[in-house]
Amino acid sequence: MKNNAITSRDVDFAKWYTDVVRAAKLADYTSVKGCIAIEPNGYAIWEKIQSIMDKKFKELGHVNVQMPLLIPEKLFNQEKELIEGFAPELVWVTEVGEKKLDERFAIRSTSETVFCDYYKKHITSYKDLPKLYNQWCNVFRYEKETRPFLRSREFLWQEGHTVHATDEEAIEETSRMIEVYKWFNHEILAIPSITGKKTEKEKFAGAEWTLTNEDLMYNGVCLQDGTSHYFGQKFSKAYDVKFTNKDNKEEYAYYTTWGKTTRAIAAIIMVHADDYGLVLPPRIAPKQVVIVPIGNDDAVLELCNSFNKELNDKDVVSYVDNSNKSPGFKFAEAEVNGIPIRVEVGARDLANNTITVARRDTREKINIKKEELTVDYIKDLLETIQKDMYNRALERQNKLTFEAHNMEDMERILNKQPGFIHAMWCGDEACELKVKEIRGCKSRCIVDEEPIDTKCVCCGKDAKHHVIWGIQY
Amino acid sequence: MKNNAITSRDVDFAKWYTDVVRAAKLADYTSVKGCIAIEPNGYAIWEKIQSIMDKKFKELGHVNVQMPLLIPEKLFNQEKELIEGFAPELVWVTEVGEKKLDERFAIRSTSETVFCDYYKKHITSYKDLPKLYNQWCNVFRYEKETRPFLRSREFLWQEGHTVHATDEEAIEETSRMIEVYKWFNHEILAIPSITGKKTEKEKFAGAEWTLTNEDLMYNGVCLQDGTSHYFGQKFSKAYDVKFTNKDNKEEYAYYTTWGKTTRAIAAIIMVHADDYGLVLPPRIAPKQVVIVPIGNDDAVLELCNSFNKELNDKDVVSYVDNSNKSPGFKFAEAEVNGIPIRVEVGARDLANNTITVARRDTREKINIKKEELTVDYIKDLLETIQKDMYNRALERQNKLTFEAHNMEDMERILNKQPGFIHAMWCGDEACELKVKEIRGCKSRCIVDEEPIDTKCVCCGKDAKHHVIWGIQY
Repeated sequence: MKNNAITSRDVDFAKWYTDVVRAAKLADYTSVKGCIAIEPNGYAIWEKIQSIMDKKFKELGHVNVQMPLLIPEKLFNQEKELIEGFAPELVWVTEVGEKKLDERFAIRSTSETVFCDYYKKHITSYKDLPKLYNQWCNVFRYEKETRPFLRSREFLWQEGHTVHATDEEAIEETSRMIEVYKWFNHEILAIPSITGKKTEKEKFAGAEWTLTNEDLMYNGVCLQDGTSHYFGQKFSKAYDVKFTNKDNKEEYAYYTTWGKTTRAIAAIIMVHADDYGLVLPPRIAPKQVVIVPIGNDDAVLELCNSFNKELNDKDVVSYVDNSNKSPGFKFAEAEVNGIPIRVEVGARDLANNTITVARRDTREKINIKKEELTVDYIKDLLETIQKDMYNRALERQNKLTFEAHNMEDMERILNKQPGFIHAMWCGDEACELKVKEIRGCKSRCIVDEEPIDTKCVCCGKDAKHHVIWGIQY
Repeated sequence: MKNNAITSRDVDFAKWYTDVVRAAKLADYTSVKGCIAIEPNGYAIWEKIQSIMDKKFKELGHVNVQMPLLIPEKLFNQEKELIEGFAPELVWVTEVGEKKLDERFAIRSTSETVFCDYYKKHITSYKDLPKLYNQWCNVFRYEKETRPFLRSREFLWQEGHTVHATDEEAIEETSRMIEVYKWFNHEILAIPSITGKKTEKEKFAGAEWTLTNEDLMYNGVCLQDGTSHYFGQKFSKAYDVKFTNKDNKEEYAYYTTWGKTTRAIAAIIMVHADDYGLVLPPRIAPKQVVIVPIGNDDAVLELCNSFNKELNDKDVVSYVDNSNKSPGFKFAEAEVNGIPIRVEVGARDLANNTITVARRDTREKINIKKEELTVDYIKDLLETIQKDMYNRALERQNKLTFEAHNMEDMERILNKQPGFIHAMWCGDEACELKVKEIRGCKSRCIVDEEPIDTKCVCCGKDAKHHVIWGIQY
């Protein structure tokens, strides 16, 4: 039964997206323009994202800290490219009570400035390095057009800021962290994202170069979902972060930063959700199984409760929906909320030794015998769903992956069905700008793959890079 | 060996406090005046506080959300007492890029306004109630005098915001949550705090009444460390939060809020730390045991590593200090960082079948036989340390708890050694103000205890309340 609160995905994708956000109670608009309230269902997903990523970061030796929210204007101004990149989006605190402050403070849009200012004071020798700091926090960017999770003026993220004694180590860290994001998307979110290097035009303001993790949405639009920046000595020179190296010589430190945001929730929706609501990959689902008793039969309730306890004891997050609602209402609610597995237990079925298990991803109903309902059965099914979701997303991504050898190819593909478009590039920004004229298509990343042509897709001169292009959110 | 970086606690308590914060690398000052950088050692304590409290909140049915950081001025202005209470401390965002905004936005100093604005939209029937929402976030108050953790312009906290269909339920929630804070301090932080009701003068701006959790520091100064506010229908009237009750009548909802902050870290320091640095109660220590190998003997290293693994497998958070430093340096570092237990393993001692276990709280060194070093031994010792720390704090608190029957008593006590001062009060604010003339002593809370006199400590008229007074941070 189609959810009436949700516009069909194939009719109006943008409307479908916000309908799912509202119907699954993930977030809502607020009186603060461009800022959302992340509601319990949405925040529970973010907590799960945080806990899995944070564990991984710590395994790799990172530690968490918390730096100030406000950045004095003069501190921001020390690095020209960064302030230029962010200036139009920065909001400024200028008053306290009714008094004007002597100096403006920006609300952090990113924290390179404060981290470098901290490191300047705390790093003196190579023995202090590496510093592998991360923080989970809110940031603010005054975006013009906003959409829940996808682009919000305030959003939540983690930002890693690491300092190293050698160039090699910093380069390795930059690559290592983009691989962590890719691993997270592939293994946890069931999203087959690709990684590569941003072009000069698309890199992070102030970085030497940027690695990016790019997802492909159901509609063929691309989403940047995690970036890792290599700064070399650029910021350490601007902020005077020096150390005495092993040869007892003073040297500027090597710096990297990397971040992933609540935008990951937008990716989950736009890759996996459907016309019935949210569909959560089991490994990120805050609740993996809902057990719905049908009727008030004692044997039914007892079975529901005891099986629920069995699941919880074996680390499957399940619950019994004991609320005072009709079974149909409960089914629909579990469906719109994207809970991976629904177990339906009714007196009549039980008399026939039957239990119904419904998969959220395929909406398939499976009738099993009562004795087949075991913790292992559920665990296996959760793993099957996780894999199937990944494989379906990969299959769709492959279908929406194209090759272009000239601008006619580009135009034809982009006007018909956008996706990941492989095409060669000469390295000239002018060509990037020409491609952008076609429906705003941008370079997503330079990939380390075999060339598909010898000539640039745009100017026809010798190609230097294999690039994936696409329309972006 | 006394830590040279730390001023003696009995010589200069304020200096001692900031010395401990710096020596244990908990936090540092930044270029942003009044704002600190919470460093890895400090943030790890906050993470531990969060994880234990969050688990408790969830057991009680609360769920986490995230509301906007910025509050439009007109939203703040809807509740007069709140804006009046916070106005001088509010900082305002007035510009984006180089443009002036049409409206000012305050950085949240507390989020009653945005939560009520959200609830207004999302509550229609008693069936929607209760709403038990909480958020972990940063808040900003432009304080004049600041001290790391104790009073910082930006700080981290959790703020619970709950809405109920009946007055009774809201009152119960207000009490329940102050008991949670008390439980947390007693059981986890080993701080024997007291709870009671704030006077009208000292209650939260806009609340009907406030319950508070008050700690006593080593120097006899009081610290408010967790408050729970009952708003009745005050805010729901100001923000139009209505619902249809069981009798199908429209009614304003009943509202409570409660919060605890990074100030808890200040309390840990000022109750437990000493001239050698931080002392962490085992239940809040991010690292509970450090194992220090002395020398490079294979048998020593093997024992250290295998025992460490045993501890970790049984949920004791331990680590082997394998760093390239001298044993003396490692001992001092573990000491200043407040790690509850240090295990020293040396080749010579091992030959004598001896291992040394050092308690951080008492600085006692215990020689045990090798076979006595078991996971159970360490677990028991951690529990003993936890209890002993609580008992010592309680004993000191009892010693610093006084009774005053008149203003001469008050003056004598406050000039000699401040602490928790029990005294009766008539309920008149004029008397509170008179007491405040003595070294700024304030009512901490009204307690539900037997009267100690029939007359007010100040005016001598009939007493209404048993109050605990003290000098506060």
